[in-house]
Amino acid sequence: MITGTTRLIGHLGYPTESFKAPLIYNPYFEREGIDAIVVPMGSRSEDYPSFLKLFFRLSNAHGALVTMPHKVVTTGLVDELMPTAAIAGACNAVRREADGRLTGDMFDGEGFVRGVLRKGRRIDGARALVVGAGGVGSAIAASLAKAGVAELGLFDMNAGAAEALGGRLARYYSALEVSTGSNDPTGFDIVVNATPLGMKPDDPLPLEVEGLAPTAFVGEVVMARTITPFLAEAQRRGCEVQVGTDMLFEQIPAYLEFFGLPSTTAEDLRRIASFN
Amino acid sequence: MITGTTRLIGHLGYPTESFKAPLIYNPYFEREGIDAIVVPMGSRSEDYPSFLKLFFRLSNAHGALVTMPHKVVTTGLVDELMPTAAIAGACNAVRREADGRLTGDMFDGEGFVRGVLRKGRRIDGARALVVGAGGVGSAIAASLAKAGVAELGLFDMNAGAAEALGGRLARYYSALEVSTGSNDPTGFDIVVNATPLGMKPDDPLPLEVEGLAPTAFVGEVVMARTITPFLAEAQRRGCEVQVGTDMLFEQIPAYLEFFGLPSTTAEDLRRIASFN
Repeated sequence: MITGTTRLIGHLGYPTESFKAPLIYNPYFEREGIDAIVVPMGSRSEDYPSFLKLFFRLSNAHGALVTMPHKVVTTGLVDELMPTAAIAGACNAVRREADGRLTGDMFDGEGFVRGVLRKGRRIDGARALVVGAGGVGSAIAASLAKAGVAELGLFDMNAGAAEALGGRLARYYSALEVSTGSNDPTGFDIVVNATPLGMKPDDPLPLEVEGLAPTAFVGEVVMARTITPFLAEAQRRGCEVQVGTDMLFEQIPAYLEFFGLPSTTAEDLRRIASFN
Repeated sequence: MITGTTRLIGHLGYPTESFKAPLIYNPYFEREGIDAIVVPMGSRSEDYPSFLKLFFRLSNAHGALVTMPHKVVTTGLVDELMPTAAIAGACNAVRREADGRLTGDMFDGEGFVRGVLRKGRRIDGARALVVGAGGVGSAIAASLAKAGVAELGLFDMNAGAAEALGGRLARYYSALEVSTGSNDPTGFDIVVNATPLGMKPDDPLPLEVEGLAPTAFVGEVVMARTITPFLAEAQRRGCEVQVGTDMLFEQIPAYLEFFGLPSTTAEDLRRIASFN
């Protein structure tokens, strides 16, 4: 029930048609009696910098979930950018502090990390390979670094992107060992596909799966299907896997904490969501 | 259920705490399966002109309900202003046309008029007295003129306000007979209190009730209590009355039509509303 006291969380992106967040957050807020609501707002790129600023000047604006195509530009529109967002070069959450300043953070990678941890796997001290150094790959790498990986392998078809990501990581995590230029998963404990490969049926696999150890934990960001060909290959090799939507649901508790709202578990949110 | 296709109707005003419209429209939209939602947006005066413009550039913005303190300034922010809003000097509804232009109208007075008509009273050819030539009084006068009153008496403690309203009316309704300067209800078929008198317990009555004919229809804009002292006096004289909230509920079908959404009756909306 929306009233005059309901706090608004703007879901800012364009186009809005495929937005899923309102279908997860709003039933949760309703069940818990949390007086807040996620409202899709189809802001186009040319209007977005002005709109973001004016949205947060609304007396009942509480936060923003930022999505395509605004995650990158948002890093330059907030007053304080958290390290994970700075390394990712992208920001998908903004909140207003008591003094009116805007703080931006990035939870795509945090969702991945929480999924790994909740499946009982260690990240602290592990060796992780992230294939794809775009927005989501950078976010996952940043969150893995925050969670304490000892070594990060970074690969992108665009070698410069992987190297630039390595440079940003080094600025915040000086003890982290970073290597770039190879997508060979041999010897890695955690292996992630953070490329779009797997969205289309005839896509090649994102990496040479032959090198995957059966003990490796294999994650995926593609959500077009639950078990992508890459995850199927990993499972055939005995690997434990994490599907793309796990990252989506696992990051929501992190968002809720960021927004200062009562939180819950990813499983609970999956049950509540009115799609699946 | 809010999704990425839901059309937004911004409820623009400040402060938002006492907003009632979301409690009426949203349960109605939900019951009817209309994919639209009224969202309170606490826009302060200094931000409002920019915010209104940017709100309507959202791909899913459908309309705006405009309330205090923005009704007057909105008349200068739309591309086309309907005559009732021009006479009222205030605008409480904005919609985006297919070509992106904004049209503004004013339904406070339309709510009053619909209430009168649905109680079986005639307005066409009637003599009406409107006491109070502020925003709501001007809106009621404009809508009574549109509905065909033959004669309008206008009174305001600020004589210039009543005269200015008379001038605006004359521009659109040249055949209408307008008089100003008296709040004596003698001889009027419809008598309206459009002043705030009646909100506080010790307010004086807005006019000399002795002149009210038992056949007069007496309306009220004050909503602080259902039967104000003024309405109680009118009822004692045998007059049929219209309470302040009738105007509120009767104007919503007009809004729905303006926004191109399926409409219903005021009674139905009263039943649905989650307050009362």
